[in-house]
Amino acid sequence: MATTNVLNNLKNKYSTTSKTLKIGLFGFGCVGQGIFELLQQSNGVNAEIVKIGIKNTDKKRSIDSRLFTNDSTKILYDSTIDVIIELIDDAAAAYKIVTTAMREGKAVISANKKLIANHLEELLRLQKEFAVPFLYEASVCGSIPIIRNLEEYYNTDYLSSVETICNGTTNYILTKTASEGLTYNRALKEAQDLGFAESDPTLDVQGFDAKFKSIILALHAFGVILKPEDVLNYGIHHLNIADTLFAQENNYKIKLLGKIYRKENEVIAYVAPHFVDDSHEFYNVNNEFNAVQVAAQFAEKQTFIGKGAGSHPTASAVLSDLAALRYDYHYEYKNIGQALDYNPKSLHKVYFRYTNASDLIGLNFLNITKHHQGHELNFIIGEISLEDLIQANLNERESVFLAFF
Amino acid sequence: MATTNVLNNLKNKYSTTSKTLKIGLFGFGCVGQGIFELLQQSNGVNAEIVKIGIKNTDKKRSIDSRLFTNDSTKILYDSTIDVIIELIDDAAAAYKIVTTAMREGKAVISANKKLIANHLEELLRLQKEFAVPFLYEASVCGSIPIIRNLEEYYNTDYLSSVETICNGTTNYILTKTASEGLTYNRALKEAQDLGFAESDPTLDVQGFDAKFKSIILALHAFGVILKPEDVLNYGIHHLNIADTLFAQENNYKIKLLGKIYRKENEVIAYVAPHFVDDSHEFYNVNNEFNAVQVAAQFAEKQTFIGKGAGSHPTASAVLSDLAALRYDYHYEYKNIGQALDYNPKSLHKVYFRYTNASDLIGLNFLNITKHHQGHELNFIIGEISLEDLIQANLNERESVFLAFF
Repeated sequence: MATTNVLNNLKNKYSTTSKTLKIGLFGFGCVGQGIFELLQQSNGVNAEIVKIGIKNTDKKRSIDSRLFTNDSTKILYDSTIDVIIELIDDAAAAYKIVTTAMREGKAVISANKKLIANHLEELLRLQKEFAVPFLYEASVCGSIPIIRNLEEYYNTDYLSSVETICNGTTNYILTKTASEGLTYNRALKEAQDLGFAESDPTLDVQGFDAKFKSIILALHAFGVILKPEDVLNYGIHHLNIADTLFAQENNYKIKLLGKIYRKENEVIAYVAPHFVDDSHEFYNVNNEFNAVQVAAQFAEKQTFIGKGAGSHPTASAVLSDLAALRYDYHYEYKNIGQALDYNPKSLHKVYFRYTNASDLIGLNFLNITKHHQGHELNFIIGEISLEDLIQANLNERESVFLAFF
Repeated sequence: MATTNVLNNLKNKYSTTSKTLKIGLFGFGCVGQGIFELLQQSNGVNAEIVKIGIKNTDKKRSIDSRLFTNDSTKILYDSTIDVIIELIDDAAAAYKIVTTAMREGKAVISANKKLIANHLEELLRLQKEFAVPFLYEASVCGSIPIIRNLEEYYNTDYLSSVETICNGTTNYILTKTASEGLTYNRALKEAQDLGFAESDPTLDVQGFDAKFKSIILALHAFGVILKPEDVLNYGIHHLNIADTLFAQENNYKIKLLGKIYRKENEVIAYVAPHFVDDSHEFYNVNNEFNAVQVAAQFAEKQTFIGKGAGSHPTASAVLSDLAALRYDYHYEYKNIGQALDYNPKSLHKVYFRYTNASDLIGLNFLNITKHHQGHELNFIIGEISLEDLIQANLNERESVFLAFF
């Protein structure tokens, strides 16, 4: 049929222009295995995994054992390999792999938000010095294509804010505490049993993971390089039933949000629990789902909702990076040079629940609109600066809980 | 500061690789003016509008009158112009502009879904024959970057469905009929007063606009070229208060959905009102907002919500296409060749409200689960094929209304 011929011709034309990529993969957990599988099936990407770096070569594998090596140099210094996909847990080892690969002129794909957020400046420099693409869509909100969209789609617009639910573990726990009245510990246990939370959940529940992701988004959205120690991350691990009830009585759900926004020439960024009402698109983003809301002058408000973690959603993001490498895609970091400053002095309206009067020491609340001291619950509603909250190190203080309005 | 230097160097490196684009713009309505404005401000795109084609050169303009011409050949055959942006209402004139520009080797950006859906095959052929990019992100769901994401992001995954609320006019009307109990005519009038509906709303309210958009999405999602006459579009213009009440009593909202999905080797596509319950991400997509939900094997379910029309959201989509042209971006139509067939014989469960028994003639309902004949309301709940519905031409029959479950 004529139609089919036209279409096939068109397809052939384009596919001959794309390269076959030789991949060295580090890590063969569920994401790595998912990618291997998908590459076996997918006709969308002309790519082949030629070597897989793992710790333990004795472990029985479902595929040809000759693909595996525990000697990373055999992959990193193999000049026939074009692309390194780094999917290991250990951020220090990942740092070595990623930076060595870039110095060797290889394109690198990573999902490691901690590594990326902690070394943004160096990773930018290496991209430039060695003229290599470094792509990491899977590092933020899994399958939601937010980095690519910030780079490609919103870069011609004037962004005002990027807000996220970017941690599935905490969103799952918060959904359960709200909808089933579970305690935090009980909900955490359930999340762990279902594989939505790690056995050591610190990075997730204390907001570190969401902070790393927010730092990456802040670079692509506003061109700023934030240092993790300068950005507030306050988690949900001290949430108690009184806080959950306070939210419900006021028709709110509590969601752990990463917020990054621009106010004139300043950028404000932080991660903390927030009260969200039912007019907000995030109100019904529940369980392990993630969401991103971008506000821009022209595109106005856009919301993306999808799975933020899990082997398949993550593999899907890695593969889309791989597909992009076929046409030499690289991030352009177009917003760098806007010369925006980070402002941790901004004031925010919060609910602060405490146990003893001594919990208030060192916290400079301004414009207090409510100070409730009751039999079962003490709380203040007032304004406080991000800087004060960072210094107060509330993640370590069991007797209090804080949420932003 | 060291950081700033690194960043600026990186920025310079990338921006020198991008071209300055010379643009010929057709149409200077609100979208065209929005683009002109944004290009004056935006440092994201290195592009200049050098000529603007309009009908009436006597009209007073806010900018240099030497930019305007009513002679389209002065733009189309100007070899210094690289890109044509076509933003006129008239689909026949747009067809001529777009195809001539492509034959002249120019990149073309268009927002004209009717033109594109009606000439998909020819437009694909011209892209190939003249090796020119033809981009049209603004044609579907305005500011929501769905075409680009289907092309770039989901092409490595196995898509199962794409569902949309892609017509803001009908979504506005349906929001008002549901939330304020307005009649269809009253809600239409309100939409017209607010500029959300045209004075002749036929294309919107009868589902043609949503069908054109769905046909474009079907190509990018599943590689099929559907002919408008083969695809059901049933609109909302015969909705009455009884239908609205039926939906409310059953805890549904009625939404006009475009649905495209894959079932083994077949593609099914149609536009019709649907009952949507509160577990669906579209339930709270109200007023003039649009939404797209993509389901894929690996990325799983992703939802995008944003403004689907209006000068600014549309301008934002056009500009993102323009930004993409700087690196010679073109759609690859990677799903072409999957050899999927379109199947209009599929059965669907519907609610069919009618006035007289004669309304049922020629409609082959199967598996009827309810046939209500009452004082004020007659309806059938049963299954019917898309083919039957296309033949029945229900858009022309005032005495009935239909919605899919």
